[in-house]
Amino acid sequence: MSTTQTNKIEILKSATSKINEVDFGNLSFGSVFTDHLFECDFKNGEWQKPVIKPYAPFLLDPSSRVFHYGQAIFEGMKAYKDANDDVWLFRPDENYNRFNKSALRMAMPEVPEEIFMNGLNQLLQLDEAWIKKGKGNAMYIRPFMIATGTGVIANPSHDYKFMIILSPVTSYYSGDVKVLIAEHFSRAANGGIGAAKAAGNYAAQFYPTNLANQAGFQQVIWTDDATHTKLEEAGTMNVFFRINDTLFTAPVSERILDGVTRKTLIELAKSENIAVEIRPVLVSELVEAAKNGSLKEIFGAGTAAVVSPISGFSYQDVYYDLPKIEKSVAIQLKDKLTNIQNKLEEDTFGWTVKI
Amino acid sequence: MSTTQTNKIEILKSATSKINEVDFGNLSFGSVFTDHLFECDFKNGEWQKPVIKPYAPFLLDPSSRVFHYGQAIFEGMKAYKDANDDVWLFRPDENYNRFNKSALRMAMPEVPEEIFMNGLNQLLQLDEAWIKKGKGNAMYIRPFMIATGTGVIANPSHDYKFMIILSPVTSYYSGDVKVLIAEHFSRAANGGIGAAKAAGNYAAQFYPTNLANQAGFQQVIWTDDATHTKLEEAGTMNVFFRINDTLFTAPVSERILDGVTRKTLIELAKSENIAVEIRPVLVSELVEAAKNGSLKEIFGAGTAAVVSPISGFSYQDVYYDLPKIEKSVAIQLKDKLTNIQNKLEEDTFGWTVKI
Ligand SMILES: Cc1ncc(COP(=O)(O)O)c(C=O)c1O
Ligand SMILES: Cc1ncc(COP(=O)(O)O)c(C=O)c1O
Repeated sequence: MSTTQTNKIEILKSATSKINEVDFGNLSFGSVFTDHLFECDFKNGEWQKPVIKPYAPFLLDPSSRVFHYGQAIFEGMKAYKDANDDVWLFRPDENYNRFNKSALRMAMPEVPEEIFMNGLNQLLQLDEAWIKKGKGNAMYIRPFMIATGTGVIANPSHDYKFMIILSPVTSYYSGDVKVLIAEHFSRAANGGIGAAKAAGNYAAQFYPTNLANQAGFQQVIWTDDATHTKLEEAGTMNVFFRINDTLFTAPVSERILDGVTRKTLIELAKSENIAVEIRPVLVSELVEAAKNGSLKEIFGAGTAAVVSPISGFSYQDVYYDLPKIEKSVAIQLKDKLTNIQNKLEEDTFGWTVKI
Repeated sequence: MSTTQTNKIEILKSATSKINEVDFGNLSFGSVFTDHLFECDFKNGEWQKPVIKPYAPFLLDPSSRVFHYGQAIFEGMKAYKDANDDVWLFRPDENYNRFNKSALRMAMPEVPEEIFMNGLNQLLQLDEAWIKKGKGNAMYIRPFMIATGTGVIANPSHDYKFMIILSPVTSYYSGDVKVLIAEHFSRAANGGIGAAKAAGNYAAQFYPTNLANQAGFQQVIWTDDATHTKLEEAGTMNVFFRINDTLFTAPVSERILDGVTRKTLIELAKSENIAVEIRPVLVSELVEAAKNGSLKEIFGAGTAAVVSPISGFSYQDVYYDLPKIEKSVAIQLKDKLTNIQNKLEEDTFGWTVKI
């Protein structure tokens, strides 16, 4: 990745570091941030001078459009440190491209590649000591953009702020993951913004997810909102279903996020000679497969959760427990993926990019 | 409206007023704010001490959940000053109740009535000089709540900020309003958040609305996302269709905002002996009525736009121009409504509430 022109970024270093206050063995996902952040404002139709500066709160007008009309998008990616202390990104171009697709759908300006990638590289270099080695450890990277223009009128902002913040993490989910198949609530509309990583998509899921949590389920698997018959994705993960020896996953659509982990697992599975079928998966098929014993595994796939095995699902008040599996495809693919990400295995795909 | 216990609100007055810098004859909707705002934070499971203070930017952490997961809701209401300089709200209980319905759907805490209503009253009293008399003039009131808790993990915030800001306005739309009937894009899903005044619902409409604007239409009329055959509502207005002498409007649903203006116009129409049918209105019916000449009027209804006559619509690339009407029901209802709001006519409904 090019780090030319990085001299364009103004760098204001923090006088002190918070790193010694952090218990890296005991991180709660997304709650600790490094010493610096990257920021670039969009004003008068142009991206302004980018800056790296100490992580700190910033001022916003009460009428900022992000508060009132929800123009806000983000990405989630990770950086990994290998045994030689080199730092690697995983398919960053995918996140960059998806970010700008989200921007387009939310009527926000695209962020130039140079600003996104140089910002990311420089910031990671500056806070490199915060990236810990070892499988499971990673630096979670959160690029995001918000509408900072003022005025309570429902039309697109003229001003925006693009930022990158960094949070050292271990893994996202722990323990048993039981899921509820959505029968009434939905996360996305046909012709809506489900395929964008738009902030509003997430808050929309909180209430139904709370209800699921109260009923003893960690996650909801969303279905299509029109018929609730097709399995779509989970809150922050795409989902795979293994029936006999074939993996099934829904095609991406304007309702479903085009996950980087999903597409990576599809390629990895193919390279491991695991059959993958990308087609709409019906709830009725899942129930049938659970009943006749052909349903072997369900797992979620996402940057934060990596590969997250699901132990059972509930539909129409019936709970279907999945068998304890000997040779789990989820674990096989997770190992393969994390080995590549952590540079423990050769990356024959060209997915890892050194910063 | 009770103003007891207002002594609980801490009031920090602005040393100077910006009022003399404002050209009240030339206001752009929602762009000018009064000297003060009302603020109340939610922390540790409790609403904290409310405060009225000078309108000013405030600090937020870059990881605040409103930026990343879109937990943000709002209301839109108006205050009017009558000939005797008394200030009146219009059905404020409706906005208060809807605000808390939105809060529930977005997994945010409900705001107690005392905080909402006393805050509103005290703030309006303090900035009363900003409320101008005369039909068309109003104080637009924007209560809103955002998630201020930190951390990039997709679950509900623990901390929130509730604010009220005030913006003197005249009217929202001006000129000819032509609308496009949505054939692909949608604003809300079945089982989604369309009925909530959630920030994310608005940004979702910007891109398709931009496309409509570029094609020469001011607004989009959304249709149901599953079939695109039923007429739902516009970006910030519910819609009414007059076919012969009957008004039709869609029933509210989990996809459609339960507009205060809509329900008020329905009651006003009934009191004026205008037939109103509340039932799903099909795009095909509208086209048919336009073709056979029975479609007399279409108008939008909302707090900002009041009653906004629509001059024609486009569907499947055919533009249907509406007839210039002699005795417009839209204008009849608008006059009735604004007369009541501005206290030019007796309010036999008990809708107006003096502050
Ligand atoms: C809604 C949704 N689906 C799926 C994913 C998984 O995508 P990725 O693998 O790119 O992280 C995410 C998280 O990024 C998400 O937010
Ligand atoms: C989506 C939507 N529909 C309808 C309306 C009209 O509602 P009300 O009459 O309560 O202002 C609004 C504006 O408030 C709105 O945002």
